[in-house]
Amino acid sequence: MADRIYNFNPGPAALPLSVLEEIRENFLDFRGSGMSIAEISHRSREFDDVINDAVARTKRLLGLNDDFEVLFIQGGASLQFCMIPMNFLPQGKSADYVDTGTWSTKAIKEAELQGKSVRVVASSEDKNYCYIPQNLTFNDDAAFVHLTSNNTIKGTQWAEFPATNDVPIICDMSSDIMSRPLDVNRFGMMYAGAQKNVGPAGVCLVIIRKDLLDWIPDTVPTMLKYSTFAAKNSLYNTPPCFAVYTIQLVLKWLEETIGGLEKMAAINQDKARLLYGFMDGTDFYRPTAAADSRSLMNVTFRLPGEELEQLFVQQALAKGLGGLKGHRSVGGCRASIYNAVSLEAVGALVEFMKTFAREHG
Amino acid sequence: MADRIYNFNPGPAALPLSVLEEIRENFLDFRGSGMSIAEISHRSREFDDVINDAVARTKRLLGLNDDFEVLFIQGGASLQFCMIPMNFLPQGKSADYVDTGTWSTKAIKEAELQGKSVRVVASSEDKNYCYIPQNLTFNDDAAFVHLTSNNTIKGTQWAEFPATNDVPIICDMSSDIMSRPLDVNRFGMMYAGAQKNVGPAGVCLVIIRKDLLDWIPDTVPTMLKYSTFAAKNSLYNTPPCFAVYTIQLVLKWLEETIGGLEKMAAINQDKARLLYGFMDGTDFYRPTAAADSRSLMNVTFRLPGEELEQLFVQQALAKGLGGLKGHRSVGGCRASIYNAVSLEAVGALVEFMKTFAREHG
Repeated sequence: MADRIYNFNPGPAALPLSVLEEIRENFLDFRGSGMSIAEISHRSREFDDVINDAVARTKRLLGLNDDFEVLFIQGGASLQFCMIPMNFLPQGKSADYVDTGTWSTKAIKEAELQGKSVRVVASSEDKNYCYIPQNLTFNDDAAFVHLTSNNTIKGTQWAEFPATNDVPIICDMSSDIMSRPLDVNRFGMMYAGAQKNVGPAGVCLVIIRKDLLDWIPDTVPTMLKYSTFAAKNSLYNTPPCFAVYTIQLVLKWLEETIGGLEKMAAINQDKARLLYGFMDGTDFYRPTAAADSRSLMNVTFRLPGEELEQLFVQQALAKGLGGLKGHRSVGGCRASIYNAVSLEAVGALVEFMKTFAREHG
Repeated sequence: MADRIYNFNPGPAALPLSVLEEIRENFLDFRGSGMSIAEISHRSREFDDVINDAVARTKRLLGLNDDFEVLFIQGGASLQFCMIPMNFLPQGKSADYVDTGTWSTKAIKEAELQGKSVRVVASSEDKNYCYIPQNLTFNDDAAFVHLTSNNTIKGTQWAEFPATNDVPIICDMSSDIMSRPLDVNRFGMMYAGAQKNVGPAGVCLVIIRKDLLDWIPDTVPTMLKYSTFAAKNSLYNTPPCFAVYTIQLVLKWLEETIGGLEKMAAINQDKARLLYGFMDGTDFYRPTAAADSRSLMNVTFRLPGEELEQLFVQQALAKGLGGLKGHRSVGGCRASIYNAVSLEAVGALVEFMKTFAREHG
């Protein structure tokens, strides 16, 4: 048996052990094909079954009707930042963006780099992005509203999405997709780099309302048009087969082992409550996000001093608790407790934190 | 032991068994990290070692000096078709393209779609791309010359690259990179979707001469600029970790088990000689590429009639020889005999072909 750690990395991140075991078990002979998933043709019946099942499970889990396409695109959420304005923001139109930190900021910059008209209707930069702006007003003539549902680095999350009248929301859900049920009809597009909640690095899950595909200018390069992927079930060119297969297995685990997004959300709430609740009862650990904006996925916190924080991260790793360092741009500590991080793992973390506080408090 | 087939698929394609076994062996605990390669942080020391080793091996195998950058970019060669003119073909300049079939044709279309000036200086379309054009003249003022070194679908390959004076060649080497030594100083850029000769689907290996990075306009989106990848060792955003790791292992196999590109080329010549030589001695099997343009990687051939071809592909698979169907756009049969397809596999194919011809000739 391999010596596994509790993995609190922010992404790439923990995957369900049963998923990893199934991949390993079939790695030399994928479903009787005599080939590895890393060798099999993307035009084969076996791979068709994989991608079709991944699409079907995405639709069932999120309750998507046939108005939506489910696509798999390479390049990460970062490539989406430039594809979104290229596809959906023509000259003469403007889009509303909310700036809730690093990734929102990058999305805004990529639109501006293309000379597109962007209105930043709200920002939490004034307090180092430690909160989610409230009471927002959007422009009725905006092509779309862009949000980041969960801010991996700053540790904040939209508990509820704001009213935008009929303007479709385009939402970067990289770090909380599939962590809770959604009212999907609020969204024109949802996208997520897979490497946090649904798979390994190397693919972005893109869910798009079909009518938006009609907006796309003909002049967009073929591989940067959403319509190219929609027309061919993400098989216009060779997709990242291993990553799509892993997603399929993670979604199967979500449906069949966990029992769907309501149940997943309840577990995620339990995990977050345990960790925040423990910290709120101490003077030693201080969560950095405003209480009403706390992320259930990325729990950011400080200790009394940077040297203690370094020691905390080191000693935790020595005890088999990995990935607790905060992002280099903000410092401190962070526990990423995505879907595949169990309540047991969070419990082990809290026990370690108690001991550490006793020894160094 | 898994029941493996001989895999003649055109891509994704066969990988060395020892590589697959090493991935499987370490799949739950990557190099003592307690995490899978599918879970480990791309900012970790362990992953740094992977990507740095993949770069170093690429440089050693191809004999690249420090004038070149080795990059890993998602999106396949198809995304490169649009990135190349975006980065290297400014208004007022023109580029020379040679059209040797499907993938060349797509590269040309993507440049034209952006309104760029393209001169198609030669094409083998007149004979359904069954040959490589010779005695070419290029324009001295071209920004670059674009070639496709091996044509996966048409079964042709440049045996020697044409003289272009000092105009740098940008070359799609998706289906023959690392299959033979190259005079790398002829090239401004070499690129290859990994899923044929060097890895799984989900990453493109891009080798670029550093001085070309100075050509890139500031207005190119961040994720579509080669300079973004060069500045951060392909770690500007999360790379496809699993695919890069697999490439690292394939390159290690090439260096340490095969013994480098001279030896690999000799093996590839033996394999091609065996297969073409056998077919040239029959009336039953007819190679489709002109004799002087034959690909050592993708051997395309016809049988006397489409029904026989279907039967051939079916019966071969039943005997454990997979992936022999020709591309849907051209029909017929094709044996892709990339680096990881052994001489033994080609021998088994020839034996099957003898039996089949005897029974149906």
